[in-house]
Amino acid sequence: MRYSFTSRAEWMMSSSLKYIKSYPRQESFISFAEELPAEDLFPLTPLKSAAAAVLSSNPLALQYGDPEGYTPLREWLRAEWRLHKDVEVKVSEILLTTGSQQAMDLLARVYVDPGDTVLVENPTSPGCLQILRMQGADIIPVEGNEDGIRVEHLLQQIEAHHPKLLFVAPNFTNPTGVLWSIERRNEVLELCRRHNILIVEDDSYGDLHFMSAKDPSFMVESYPSLFALDGHGVGGQVLYVGSFSKTVAPGLRTGWAAGNRQLIEVMAAAKQLADWQSSNLNQRLLHQLLESTLFDWNKHIVLLNREYSIRLKLMNELLKRPAWKGIHYTLPAGGMFLWVQLPAGLHSESLLKCSIGKGVSFLPGTLCYAGEGGMDRIRLNFTHPGRDELWLGMNLISEAIHEFTARS
Amino acid sequence: MRYSFTSRAEWMMSSSLKYIKSYPRQESFISFAEELPAEDLFPLTPLKSAAAAVLSSNPLALQYGDPEGYTPLREWLRAEWRLHKDVEVKVSEILLTTGSQQAMDLLARVYVDPGDTVLVENPTSPGCLQILRMQGADIIPVEGNEDGIRVEHLLQQIEAHHPKLLFVAPNFTNPTGVLWSIERRNEVLELCRRHNILIVEDDSYGDLHFMSAKDPSFMVESYPSLFALDGHGVGGQVLYVGSFSKTVAPGLRTGWAAGNRQLIEVMAAAKQLADWQSSNLNQRLLHQLLESTLFDWNKHIVLLNREYSIRLKLMNELLKRPAWKGIHYTLPAGGMFLWVQLPAGLHSESLLKCSIGKGVSFLPGTLCYAGEGGMDRIRLNFTHPGRDELWLGMNLISEAIHEFTARS
Repeated sequence: MRYSFTSRAEWMMSSSLKYIKSYPRQESFISFAEELPAEDLFPLTPLKSAAAAVLSSNPLALQYGDPEGYTPLREWLRAEWRLHKDVEVKVSEILLTTGSQQAMDLLARVYVDPGDTVLVENPTSPGCLQILRMQGADIIPVEGNEDGIRVEHLLQQIEAHHPKLLFVAPNFTNPTGVLWSIERRNEVLELCRRHNILIVEDDSYGDLHFMSAKDPSFMVESYPSLFALDGHGVGGQVLYVGSFSKTVAPGLRTGWAAGNRQLIEVMAAAKQLADWQSSNLNQRLLHQLLESTLFDWNKHIVLLNREYSIRLKLMNELLKRPAWKGIHYTLPAGGMFLWVQLPAGLHSESLLKCSIGKGVSFLPGTLCYAGEGGMDRIRLNFTHPGRDELWLGMNLISEAIHEFTARS
Repeated sequence: MRYSFTSRAEWMMSSSLKYIKSYPRQESFISFAEELPAEDLFPLTPLKSAAAAVLSSNPLALQYGDPEGYTPLREWLRAEWRLHKDVEVKVSEILLTTGSQQAMDLLARVYVDPGDTVLVENPTSPGCLQILRMQGADIIPVEGNEDGIRVEHLLQQIEAHHPKLLFVAPNFTNPTGVLWSIERRNEVLELCRRHNILIVEDDSYGDLHFMSAKDPSFMVESYPSLFALDGHGVGGQVLYVGSFSKTVAPGLRTGWAAGNRQLIEVMAAAKQLADWQSSNLNQRLLHQLLESTLFDWNKHIVLLNREYSIRLKLMNELLKRPAWKGIHYTLPAGGMFLWVQLPAGLHSESLLKCSIGKGVSFLPGTLCYAGEGGMDRIRLNFTHPGRDELWLGMNLISEAIHEFTARS
C-alpha cells in the first residue's frame, strides 16, 4: 500500500542524525560520536546481587507499577538531593522517565504546540533539537560564551520572538562542555522570571566533574542548579531533568524530571499515553542497588570521574600532535565531550566521511546547531572509548586529516 | 509562573480516565478496572536465574542498545512465529517497544496529523482512544457484532470520512472479548486494501484463549491474524502489535510492532526521539528466560489460560446471583474482560461511585466509546483478582447494586 506519513515523520527520515546512528556496529569500529559511558566501569556485580534480592522477594516487581515511578526510588532521590545537592523537593514533584530524553520529549508534548517559539542554547544537544523539531517548534538560538548563554542576546531574542520555553544545560553543556558561572545562572533565571519563560534544565552531565581535588561540596556550592536557585523549584520556573544513565548505567533507562506539581502531573498523564510507565523492575533494581551496602553511588561517581579525567588528559595530549595543528578548544572541567574547532578549510562532514572509511567516527558540529553553523566543529566523546581506543581512534582521525591536508 | 500548556494537554487533564487510574492503591481495594495479569503466576524463579546469567556475562547488558531492540530477542520472535503462529517475518520488520501502548503511540505520532480521520472498532480500548485524541485525530467509530466489525458499516464510514487508519483487535477485543470470524477478517482486510487504509492490529490478548481442549494449533488455523492473511505482512497493509506484558510480565515493559520495513523504520526513528530505546537489560532478561530450559513459554501460556478460564467460570457463576438479574453478556472465549450490559436504570458511573465507597472498582463502559455510549455497560477484569478476591469483590458490587435497586 502507499503510506502517507505525517509531514514531521517525512522530515525526520531525511534528517542527518539518523545517518550518524546507523553505522554498522562492528567490533573494531571506534566511535567518538555517541553519548555513551564506559561499560568497563558499570557496577555489574552489585547489580547482580540487587537483581537476586528484588526477584526473590515480591512478584509486584514484575507487575505494572505507578506511572509516576517507583515511590521508594523517588524518596531516595529526595533524600540524596537534600544531603548532597542542597536541594529540597517533594516526592510528588518527581517523575521517573525512560532516560532524560523521554523527560524532555514529554515536556515538549505537553508544552509546545506547532509554531510555538522555543529558545535553545546554541550549540546544543542534537537530541534536544530533534525533539523540538518533531514537535514543530520554531527554534531560536541563543549564543553564549565561557560563562553560559549571553544575557544581552537572550533578552534580544526574548523581545523579538516572545518564546515560552528555554532549553539549557548549565553544567557541561552538550556539546561545548561550558560550565555556567553562578552570576550568569542568576541573570538568566531572573530574565526568564520576568518574561514568564519556562526553563528546562538538563543536568545529565552535572555529576561528571573533574575538580575532585577540591572539597566534594565545591561543585554544588559554586554552581547551584537553576532549580535550586529558583527556591528549590518553589518558583515553578525550572523543570530539572536528570538521569542515572551516565552515573550508573544506561541499560536501566532511568531518568527523571523534577518540578512544580502542576507540570509533573501533566507530564505524568502524557507518560501514561506514551508507554503507561517505565520499567518498574528496573526502578526497583536501581533502588535496591542504591540502598545496598555493596554499592556507594557517590564513591562510584568519584571513581568514574577519576577515570574520565585521565581519558580527557590523554585526549588533550593526543590533540597536540602535528595533524591537529591549527585547532582550537577549551578543556572542559567535566562532562563527556571535547568540542573542537577545526582549522580553516577542514570541513567536519567531509572529514567524517573519510574517517568512517578508516573505522572511526565523531559527531559533526552541524548537528548541534539550531540553524546554520558547525561546519568547522566536531564533538569528540572521551568517556566511552578505553585508553587504547582513544589512542588508536585519534591516530585514525589524524590520518584522515593528513590525507585532507595533502590533497588541498 | 503561569504555565501555558498545549491545548491537548489541557484536554488530557480533564479526561475521565485519569480519574479512574488515581484511586489510592490500598491493600484491601479490589480492582476489576485495570488490565493486569495475575502476579501469582509470574515466572519469578526462572527470571531470577535469567538475571544472574545476564548480569554475569557481559557489561553490554547495561549499555545503550539498538534502538530497534535487542536482535536475539527479535530473532526469537521470528522463530517462534514461524513455528507456532504460521507467520513469516524478518527481524528488520520487528521493532521492540515499551509495551504495546508505546507501539500504538509511535504509530500515531508518525501517521496521524491533527484532524486526520481514524476508524476504531467501537467500543475499543480506552488506551487506544486516548492516544488518538492526544494526537488530535478525528475518531470515527465502526460498530460490530459477534463476528467482528460490520463490513457494511465499515464501508459506509470509509465512504463518508476517507480515513487513513483503522484500529482493531480481532482476538478478544478490549473490552467486548469478541473473536472475529475468519470471513470477517478477510472481508475487512480486502476493504482496507481497496481504500488504502492502514490497519493497526492489536493482538495483546490473542494468546489468552480458553479453548485448550482442542488442538493447540486450533486458534492459529481458525483465527489467523490480519497480518498473516496479508501475506505475512508482505502486503504492508497491517501493522501488528503484540506484547509480553500479558504472557510473561508487564514489569519487563516489552512489546513490539511488526510490519513493512518502511513503517518500522519511521517508527524506530520516532522512538529514538521519544526515549532513545527501551531497556536493553529487560530485553536481554526476557531473551535469556525464553531460551532457558527452566522455562517454556508455550507451557506457561497453557498454565495461565487454565487458571484464567477457572476465574472466568467463577465470574460466570457469580453473575447468576439475584443482584445481577437483568444483565446481559456473552461469555468470551479468551482475553481478560467480561463486558456486561446492566439492566435498564442502572447507570455505570453512578454504580462505580457507590462501589468505590465499598472498596471495589470496575471500568465504566463510557471510557470505551469514541462518542456517546456505554452508560449501561461495565468492563470487569477477571485475570488479576485471585479467586477469593473475585468472590469478595463481586459481593461488594452486588451490595452496591442492591442499594441502587432499593432506592429506585
